[in-house]
Amino acid sequence: MTLRGRKKGETVPQGVVSRLPVYFRYLTELETARVERISSAQLGEALDFTAAQIRSDLSYFGSFGQQGYGYNVEELLDQVKQILGIKQRYAMVLVGAGNLGKAIGSYEWFRAEGFEIEAIFDINPHLIGNYHGGCVIRPLEELQTHLQENPADIGIIATPKAAGQTVCDLLVAGGVDSIWNFCPTHLTVPDHVLVEDMHLTDSLLRLVFRLNERRAGNGSD
Amino acid sequence: MTLRGRKKGETVPQGVVSRLPVYFRYLTELETARVERISSAQLGEALDFTAAQIRSDLSYFGSFGQQGYGYNVEELLDQVKQILGIKQRYAMVLVGAGNLGKAIGSYEWFRAEGFEIEAIFDINPHLIGNYHGGCVIRPLEELQTHLQENPADIGIIATPKAAGQTVCDLLVAGGVDSIWNFCPTHLTVPDHVLVEDMHLTDSLLRLVFRLNERRAGNGSD
Repeated sequence: MTLRGRKKGETVPQGVVSRLPVYFRYLTELETARVERISSAQLGEALDFTAAQIRSDLSYFGSFGQQGYGYNVEELLDQVKQILGIKQRYAMVLVGAGNLGKAIGSYEWFRAEGFEIEAIFDINPHLIGNYHGGCVIRPLEELQTHLQENPADIGIIATPKAAGQTVCDLLVAGGVDSIWNFCPTHLTVPDHVLVEDMHLTDSLLRLVFRLNERRAGNGSD
Repeated sequence: MTLRGRKKGETVPQGVVSRLPVYFRYLTELETARVERISSAQLGEALDFTAAQIRSDLSYFGSFGQQGYGYNVEELLDQVKQILGIKQRYAMVLVGAGNLGKAIGSYEWFRAEGFEIEAIFDINPHLIGNYHGGCVIRPLEELQTHLQENPADIGIIATPKAAGQTVCDLLVAGGVDSIWNFCPTHLTVPDHVLVEDMHLTDSLLRLVFRLNERRAGNGSD
């Protein structure tokens, strides 16, 4: 991966990282709508960032824009995909086949972008043996053997709160070093393991905070 | 709501807002574990923020900490709840009773914290009439009448992508001015309506970016 604007070893600030998926989504919409080019001002207006913010974010990865032309949508999307690392295949295992697990397992977007759920595990005997999204739901005891034979890039945890840490430990023991966690608990992991938490409540709380700001007349818009 | 540290009309920066739920979750865990007080250094270590960052965030709402004592967990949690606005009841309607909608509808935490899903709507005749989380699933045509009789604070959209904007328009027409959107599409709303997007893909993409940074030896930890 060539990142022209970034020195080897330089870490991209968390704020930039958190905005990259937003660029990705919007540029994908533009490409689908066959829009050929866009200026940083237009991008800014659509995404509610300042044009300076956008130029600063994208300059982290090299300068794509041309004065008076803006960005070529297809090239920029291609670069953003490259930066995000979604031009390759990722093997995933999913633990938890309740409603949330099923919702994750049937998310069409994953397969289209190279994210493949290779196996689903649960402890509920009523679910084991059922098919979901092209995978049979297997007993949790088979997780270790599966991971030995099929190393996974990403482990998804969609269990109830009480099972989260146990499942996390099993995944880590099986060599999984990136965890996508939907379980509403704080996971403890060794230093080399990445955890990305997907806390439903955080998102709701941000909405409620803004709702109250607006009601109190403190809203910014 | 009294916000001692903040002038009337002053907007809290997005970064602070996005960290408040993290404080809320961790302080709730501390309170459950009967921890009585915590220093900004300890909070910082647990949450991976600097102590200075924490003091700065919390000072936005007034100064709670005492030199040499730290923060009283119960008082701080109480203040954070007050700031977030979760010491009151919120009425919610949920549109979409597929796997994701069912997962949202059965999230126990909501009711415990005053978030009440009052009605669930779908267009699938196989789902209509079923009970989920204490609510009967009703046909979407009844949404307008329901909202006229029972104004909702928050509308939750958990439909497939293609239905998202239509459902959003129905909610807004029914007087809902805060939308919690799980549908992977960009919603267009009038200025007075708040949208909080819950994009699964954004979270996965952040994880993958960090995974690749680490593999390339660019990781920060």
